[in-house]
Amino acid sequence: MQSIRVETPSAKYEVHVGSGLVETLGVRLKRIIDPLPRRVFIVTSPEIWARWGEVVIGSSTAAMLHSPIVLFLPPGEKNKTFANVEKLARQMVEAEADRGSLLIAFGGGIVGDITGFLAAIYMRGIAYVQIPTTFLAQVDSSVGGKTGVNLPEGKNLIGSFHHPLAVFADSRVLGTLDDRELRAGLMESVKAGFIRDRALVRFMEENSAAILARDPKALEKVIAASVRMKADVVNRDEREGGLRMILNLGHTVGHAIEQATGYKTLLHGEAIAWGMIAALHVAIKRRTISPLEAARMDALIHLYGPLPAIKISANKLIQATTGDKKNIGGVRRFVLPVGIGDATVIEDLTHTELEAAIKFMLTQAAQGSQI
Amino acid sequence: MQSIRVETPSAKYEVHVGSGLVETLGVRLKRIIDPLPRRVFIVTSPEIWARWGEVVIGSSTAAMLHSPIVLFLPPGEKNKTFANVEKLARQMVEAEADRGSLLIAFGGGIVGDITGFLAAIYMRGIAYVQIPTTFLAQVDSSVGGKTGVNLPEGKNLIGSFHHPLAVFADSRVLGTLDDRELRAGLMESVKAGFIRDRALVRFMEENSAAILARDPKALEKVIAASVRMKADVVNRDEREGGLRMILNLGHTVGHAIEQATGYKTLLHGEAIAWGMIAALHVAIKRRTISPLEAARMDALIHLYGPLPAIKISANKLIQATTGDKKNIGGVRRFVLPVGIGDATVIEDLTHTELEAAIKFMLTQAAQGSQI
Repeated sequence: MQSIRVETPSAKYEVHVGSGLVETLGVRLKRIIDPLPRRVFIVTSPEIWARWGEVVIGSSTAAMLHSPIVLFLPPGEKNKTFANVEKLARQMVEAEADRGSLLIAFGGGIVGDITGFLAAIYMRGIAYVQIPTTFLAQVDSSVGGKTGVNLPEGKNLIGSFHHPLAVFADSRVLGTLDDRELRAGLMESVKAGFIRDRALVRFMEENSAAILARDPKALEKVIAASVRMKADVVNRDEREGGLRMILNLGHTVGHAIEQATGYKTLLHGEAIAWGMIAALHVAIKRRTISPLEAARMDALIHLYGPLPAIKISANKLIQATTGDKKNIGGVRRFVLPVGIGDATVIEDLTHTELEAAIKFMLTQAAQGSQI
Repeated sequence: MQSIRVETPSAKYEVHVGSGLVETLGVRLKRIIDPLPRRVFIVTSPEIWARWGEVVIGSSTAAMLHSPIVLFLPPGEKNKTFANVEKLARQMVEAEADRGSLLIAFGGGIVGDITGFLAAIYMRGIAYVQIPTTFLAQVDSSVGGKTGVNLPEGKNLIGSFHHPLAVFADSRVLGTLDDRELRAGLMESVKAGFIRDRALVRFMEENSAAILARDPKALEKVIAASVRMKADVVNRDEREGGLRMILNLGHTVGHAIEQATGYKTLLHGEAIAWGMIAALHVAIKRRTISPLEAARMDALIHLYGPLPAIKISANKLIQATTGDKKNIGGVRRFVLPVGIGDATVIEDLTHTELEAAIKFMLTQAAQGSQI
């Protein structure tokens, strides 16, 4: 197991990456929560609970904790709503949750985001713990304290910064993840390498077979490196004042793709992958990276593909970039690669550059990528 | 004008108490916001906007600011809902609000609470300003950063701590407040005096005629003293870890009264007044205050009455106290007066004491109070 420390002005906690963490959850919770909560609530999906419920209850009982009260959230982005937060909150009131109660998010990114937000606003804030069950959630959304829900107008438009007491990224719960989800999740690790970790890029280049075959040691290494990169950025810039923005590499165009396709055709990581390819084009044109580096980066993205094809007009995509949360006061912010393991945020991206990058990406994306 | 500083780990800002602040709002905003927001949103009620809209627009224009985009919230506690926060958020997205936008709460406590919560969660937090228009909101709810909405199960069960950039408590906007609301609001000042400000108690004893006649100087003095007391407590204990709890004098029984009467019969301040009378009874029995002090405090409450009668059974009230947000892990917390200008939080209130206090209060409350 590796433990990575998140330490921001508002919170200090550990992200534990390893195997079998859920089996020992009870004692782990006991170590970090004082006083012990009278009531523990766990938000999860029926599928995950069917597979892991007994293990969680067993480890709670073994640690002499009360079994958690289970609140189900149906899977799918469409359920990440304000209305569902209210529904969950009302179930908690019903079950007499108070300010000393603990929430556990046991699921993918959607469960994590909604549970974190619920914890942020229930009685003006209670403690919570993240147990991410998808690769994407383990390397990205469970770390950093961002929580939130969607509005019909866009994703994550409502939310809070609210850090968990701890994150338990257990590679054993990834066992049932399907291959496409794993590959899409790995794009976040590719991104982590691109913006801040050359060694991770090299490791992913050299060990793709082991990683994609879910070799536990290889996976733990990738997850831990990705988490470490993110924690390092969050530690320096908790509230996205500046540095944290670089985590959004590929997101300007990636979000636009997701929005323009109604969040249906592509997984998040896949959309970000296409977005990174667009960002690479801007970097080549601005000569912040060499053609050789760009080729290596492009190859790594496709190594963890295939990426599904997208058929949208460039105009539609450009339009979809204007509502980006990263734009403050009308300034368009864009994350630009400046070499393998380095990136920067620019505010002077021209319309022409964006258009060229999107068109370049769409040429590739029209067919989708093949391994 | 008096300016009172709030200074907590998470925020530093001024509460300005004076006359004519809305007329000069534009320049005042310019002084505290940098960079200037491209879009300003104001949440208010149709009634308040009909009376003050032109003044606000005039002062914005005079300061070369854009006129605020007006979002209406219908008056009444029943509108302090999750659904309305979502509705307001969607209107903001529609009008292209971004992270640099500013929200203004221009109304009573409900508008302030909901707008503050909206600011807390819109794109994970944007800036806002409070312009409270009721006495109660000026002395209490606009200061301290508590924001939130109700659930059908209870008041303020959902919310955040999110401080405004500034509070402008303009006594001129109180002109249209009806007499009963003013008297109920003054109960918060009575409470402020009881828990931390003997001089305020004396001032309110000696100047009730001027205060109730809305003499501007007398009102400003009472408002400023009440705000100063609250700011002082919040500065020492932002998150209600301990000291801030004393602000809840009268709230255990007061909240129970509000809940048992469906928030319809009594104004908040009136319920808290009856709650303070119950708390006085506990204090007399425990001899933390002398009968003479208790009589003086009781007299002051009734001086700012009349309080409406309540007819509920003691049992129903006792039951209604169990869902109190202040109770953590089943411990019943209670704020006990320990003299005029001092109070403490106890956790060992017995059922017998609570029952006796409630019965004592109900004997008085059965008829209501007369001046």
